[in-house]
Amino acid sequence: MADLNLDQHISQQFNDELEEVRSKVLRMGGIVESQLSDAVRAMIQGDQNLAREVADRDIEVNALEVDIDDECVRILARRQPAASDLRLVMAVIKTITDLERIGDEAKRVGRMVETELSGMLAEDIRSEIGYMGELVQQMLTRVLNAFARIDVDMAVDVIKSDNNVDVKYVSITRQLITHMAEDPRSIPTVLKVQWAARSMERIGDRCQNIAEYIIYLVKGQDIRHTEFADLID
Amino acid sequence: MADLNLDQHISQQFNDELEEVRSKVLRMGGIVESQLSDAVRAMIQGDQNLAREVADRDIEVNALEVDIDDECVRILARRQPAASDLRLVMAVIKTITDLERIGDEAKRVGRMVETELSGMLAEDIRSEIGYMGELVQQMLTRVLNAFARIDVDMAVDVIKSDNNVDVKYVSITRQLITHMAEDPRSIPTVLKVQWAARSMERIGDRCQNIAEYIIYLVKGQDIRHTEFADLID
Repeated sequence: MADLNLDQHISQQFNDELEEVRSKVLRMGGIVESQLSDAVRAMIQGDQNLAREVADRDIEVNALEVDIDDECVRILARRQPAASDLRLVMAVIKTITDLERIGDEAKRVGRMVETELSGMLAEDIRSEIGYMGELVQQMLTRVLNAFARIDVDMAVDVIKSDNNVDVKYVSITRQLITHMAEDPRSIPTVLKVQWAARSMERIGDRCQNIAEYIIYLVKGQDIRHTEFADLID
Repeated sequence: MADLNLDQHISQQFNDELEEVRSKVLRMGGIVESQLSDAVRAMIQGDQNLAREVADRDIEVNALEVDIDDECVRILARRQPAASDLRLVMAVIKTITDLERIGDEAKRVGRMVETELSGMLAEDIRSEIGYMGELVQQMLTRVLNAFARIDVDMAVDVIKSDNNVDVKYVSITRQLITHMAEDPRSIPTVLKVQWAARSMERIGDRCQNIAEYIIYLVKGQDIRHTEFADLID
């Protein structure tokens, strides 16, 4: 946290407000984490009750998003933050959008398990989805840790690891195509699995977005759409 | 524009800055519009050259996003805007994120046509994709018009029309499943079409997001995650 001066405001109240926002983002992140892990578990275990819980928790996530957004607007209007404080507020505004959409993807997977997937998936698909789910969950946990500690190195690792998710996604897709070709009756079900895999791939992308905001927050450089490696020493 | 005071700033320069940002958002929107319409056309006509152009234009969109974002941060830091000015800046920050992702979806479709789709699609699929593409293009054009004129009624219409896109998406998916079941060799190609349809469905969702920011900008009310109808008179 060397480059940030989050603890050096003249106003204790301003400090408290920024801390409050940060902690709300982490609370929101925690709920989304649990949504993702439950969605993956529900899918693998064919557990429709668990799937329903994922969708239900969306309300809480949405309420937190609106709440944090309002808080950020109030801080911008009242405190007129500059430099790293302003970057923190900007990073929060963008981070919560991605967190909310990660929750949405988890909800999509949950709804699909709840309403459209009956019975267990084939063993090989289950294990592949489980593995991809683990990769994405690790990305989310690590990017939230990086946000909590404002740790650029960890954020860079998250960006790098997205490649593993993409590779896994391509191999799952190939496997699913084989399934469908061998047994056309399985197409509707396998297509659902394909969407779930795609949702996970996009969650990986969103974790990468959040990692980029953390780097922007610390370095003051916008690395979106660039070869980030050049900017990191 | 009754509720906004965009023209009543003491500083002419501040006026100019806000106008500049607004016009850049519209320029960005125009490029994304052309990406979307070209992606749909490339797919229907199997035109790989046109598809490549869609992907190439992404660089321009990304540069504008970073540029507008920087401009917004500068305005926040220097002008410390309040009330509707602050809401405008917030709406812009969020809108360009969605516009950039719409461009990304168009790029995905373009890349798919360029690298993975050889030859023409079946006639019935072409016509369905063409129709869905039209619906989504209309949504994008109308939400950009709503942004340009800051027109809440038009924004509400955009939100309502998203339902048509969702309905169309479900019917296309059903049709594609039939295709795959009847001819398993078509699965890899049809799956690509399915992804393109899903991309379009998500573009519709993003147009809806932008419409919600416009309503927030004018009404000062955050209607995300609510039954918006109650808030509109």
